[in-house]
Amino acid sequence: MSPSHTVQGFRAIDVIRKKRDGMELAPAEIGGLIDAYTKGEVPDYQMSAWLMAVVLRGMTKPETAALTDAMLHSGEVLDLSSLPKRKVDKHSTGGVGDKTSLVLAPLVAAAGVAVPMISGRGLGHTGGTLDKLEAIPGFNVNLPVAEFRRVLEKCGCAMIGQTAEIAPADRKLYALRDVTATVESPYLICASIMSKKLAEGIDSLLLDVKTGSGAFMKSQQDAVFLAELMVETGERMGKQVVALITDMDQPLGNKIGNALEVVEVIEVLKGGGPEDLRELCLHLAGWMLQLGGASKTIAEGKQISAELISSGKALEKFRDLIALQGGDPSVVDDPERLPQASHKLDVTSGKAGYVNSMQCEQIGTAGVVLGGGRERKEDSVDPAVGIVLHKKVGEHVGADEPLATIYYNSQAKVERARQLIAESYEIADAPPTKKRPLIHQVIGKPEEKN
Amino acid sequence: MSPSHTVQGFRAIDVIRKKRDGMELAPAEIGGLIDAYTKGEVPDYQMSAWLMAVVLRGMTKPETAALTDAMLHSGEVLDLSSLPKRKVDKHSTGGVGDKTSLVLAPLVAAAGVAVPMISGRGLGHTGGTLDKLEAIPGFNVNLPVAEFRRVLEKCGCAMIGQTAEIAPADRKLYALRDVTATVESPYLICASIMSKKLAEGIDSLLLDVKTGSGAFMKSQQDAVFLAELMVETGERMGKQVVALITDMDQPLGNKIGNALEVVEVIEVLKGGGPEDLRELCLHLAGWMLQLGGASKTIAEGKQISAELISSGKALEKFRDLIALQGGDPSVVDDPERLPQASHKLDVTSGKAGYVNSMQCEQIGTAGVVLGGGRERKEDSVDPAVGIVLHKKVGEHVGADEPLATIYYNSQAKVERARQLIAESYEIADAPPTKKRPLIHQVIGKPEEKN
Repeated sequence: MSPSHTVQGFRAIDVIRKKRDGMELAPAEIGGLIDAYTKGEVPDYQMSAWLMAVVLRGMTKPETAALTDAMLHSGEVLDLSSLPKRKVDKHSTGGVGDKTSLVLAPLVAAAGVAVPMISGRGLGHTGGTLDKLEAIPGFNVNLPVAEFRRVLEKCGCAMIGQTAEIAPADRKLYALRDVTATVESPYLICASIMSKKLAEGIDSLLLDVKTGSGAFMKSQQDAVFLAELMVETGERMGKQVVALITDMDQPLGNKIGNALEVVEVIEVLKGGGPEDLRELCLHLAGWMLQLGGASKTIAEGKQISAELISSGKALEKFRDLIALQGGDPSVVDDPERLPQASHKLDVTSGKAGYVNSMQCEQIGTAGVVLGGGRERKEDSVDPAVGIVLHKKVGEHVGADEPLATIYYNSQAKVERARQLIAESYEIADAPPTKKRPLIHQVIGKPEEKN
Repeated sequence: MSPSHTVQGFRAIDVIRKKRDGMELAPAEIGGLIDAYTKGEVPDYQMSAWLMAVVLRGMTKPETAALTDAMLHSGEVLDLSSLPKRKVDKHSTGGVGDKTSLVLAPLVAAAGVAVPMISGRGLGHTGGTLDKLEAIPGFNVNLPVAEFRRVLEKCGCAMIGQTAEIAPADRKLYALRDVTATVESPYLICASIMSKKLAEGIDSLLLDVKTGSGAFMKSQQDAVFLAELMVETGERMGKQVVALITDMDQPLGNKIGNALEVVEVIEVLKGGGPEDLRELCLHLAGWMLQLGGASKTIAEGKQISAELISSGKALEKFRDLIALQGGDPSVVDDPERLPQASHKLDVTSGKAGYVNSMQCEQIGTAGVVLGGGRERKEDSVDPAVGIVLHKKVGEHVGADEPLATIYYNSQAKVERARQLIAESYEIADAPPTKKRPLIHQVIGKPEEKN
């Protein structure tokens, strides 16, 4: 019914119409659209119509790969070939209390595998690696590419935020998706993640796809779908990619909040820390070492990683990383130098019994409410606030015993947070009969599962 | 996965997300969205995402009525209650050679029923009433509302284009739909048509919903779906609405092109003209008279209309209308005063036989190619060019006999038009066994079908 709208020779409307009608787009059509959008030749209102059509019509695997490729090549792709090591990164789809990146970068670097890590901020109820790093006084996540490369060469790992040069199409698209209800599409999520990760100049990528009440993909089926899409997209682009489907039905570790999570990272790097966090870190490190050629098997990689922790070499690497990125490395020896909240409050159960389940997203939201995350994009983050959990699934709690302690700076927010946390716990007379595994499934490279 | 975007208190993203997920929107949500969009508080990129979600998810009848209502009340709703007549309008969904509005307005006005008609321009391969009227030297379709009312009071009919005051939300939305591939949705088409028509201050509305190869709704099923939606929407808003599903599998009448169509209108108003056009005009007029209370039955309405043509009263009314809107009424007596093309060319069949079918849209496109319609919005229209058909479905043609004659001004365009017309005719050895009826179906008011 409608005629034409030509933007400098590129007919965006034809590409929108084709996707609307459920047809498969050619790589040149997707490439043309992304290129023209990045240059400002296709307006936001055409792109958002196309994005909604993608959300509702889906994409084929070749379309997803073409979109990833177009977004990747909208900006600079780092060439780290002069660095004589295998380059491996890890990406998590996001959860509550998920601080594994801060453990893994120094740990894997200590094993001789380079980790060039470009991370994000907190999103919704989940925390972000950059926000956690910035809890360390002086730590600078905004390094230009040349400085990122220098830290990586010196230390074997470097941790920064997305620069203006990396995948500008993704930055522009993400801002648009955020305000047009087009975030929730596995195809768009895949292209967004993979375009940034493949721009890092890595050889291999380990994906940690979370599932459960604290993940974006609540169902395992959705998590597996996204994981398979990302693995296949990475492989189509010549990279070695493995995805682990890991549990996020309760927070990972016991500490939630930026400075509190750095404290827990230091505990793990010193050989302590909570069992689930330590175990997942070792497992992910095992995979990264195997992918990076530093071990033959995952089991051997875990063993090497455990030794690098016992020997203090991983902690030493973390100290070096902090110093090289402008931070105060003495926090490693004296975690009290990290920002501290001025008040604390215990959350009690009011009922004796066993923790049967936790509404994990709600606990993440409590952290955001306290100021540890952003309710609006322009909000700043309070690094000191957070939650320490004393009870997790399966544990017994007395009626007056604390389930958790809230660390806060604003009286106005604490009651709402307390309520969210208290309500997130389901207390039953008996412990749950089934325990959810830490790792549900491995996607990709099935020959290497052990 | 995505949080909030608040535009002056109205969360457009919630409404987009709800429609994306296939849920029914409340009237207040639709009203809020349209109101905020019209005021410029919701940006185009959010609206286009919502429009695409509507295209792919559809709308319920209450949602469609709420959208129509919101668009209607985005602007002025004419109050013609001071005019002591019933007010009836007719709207066609558009076709090739469909010039019935120019016959009906004066004809029905001559019977004492007021016709306040707000029309559109050509769209795609179809012609537009405003473009046809402007082929009459001096005819002004851009009257302000007060002048429209004055002509209507004096003459019983008036024919203008959409003013800035009428349904501004529709004008803004239509421009956006046109460039985001969101035109083709029966819900959005219904709301666009009905919001403009209900703003005219009419009591009753006759809808002429076209179906066949020259219509936007090619299948009868799609035409009926749209017709039912419009009838129910009009009834929910307290208006009497009837829809006829009429044939557009070949052009209506023999002349296509703005000035040529005015010539054919004058022929019909003088008692002549092609059989199909004359018959459809009488039938539509019969319905309009019945809806307007000027006849008890459709048959009586047809009879009265035929008499108003025989007596010359309808033609006289057309002359008055032209004069009142600034045009040259002498064209009625001397159609050669209308714009004339400088060249003509016969299109021959090359093969003897019977016309079995015509690709009607292709003939409309040939008219656009000649300059009679717009390929881009900013194009101007050549009133003189067009096509006169000598053969229609069922007729015999000799190998060297002309199927049609092209009237043109630009040598560069004529060959493409000739080809389109020649290829649109399917010539067979025998005439088609089945003849398509002029009127396929009546929707609404089933008790009044005869």
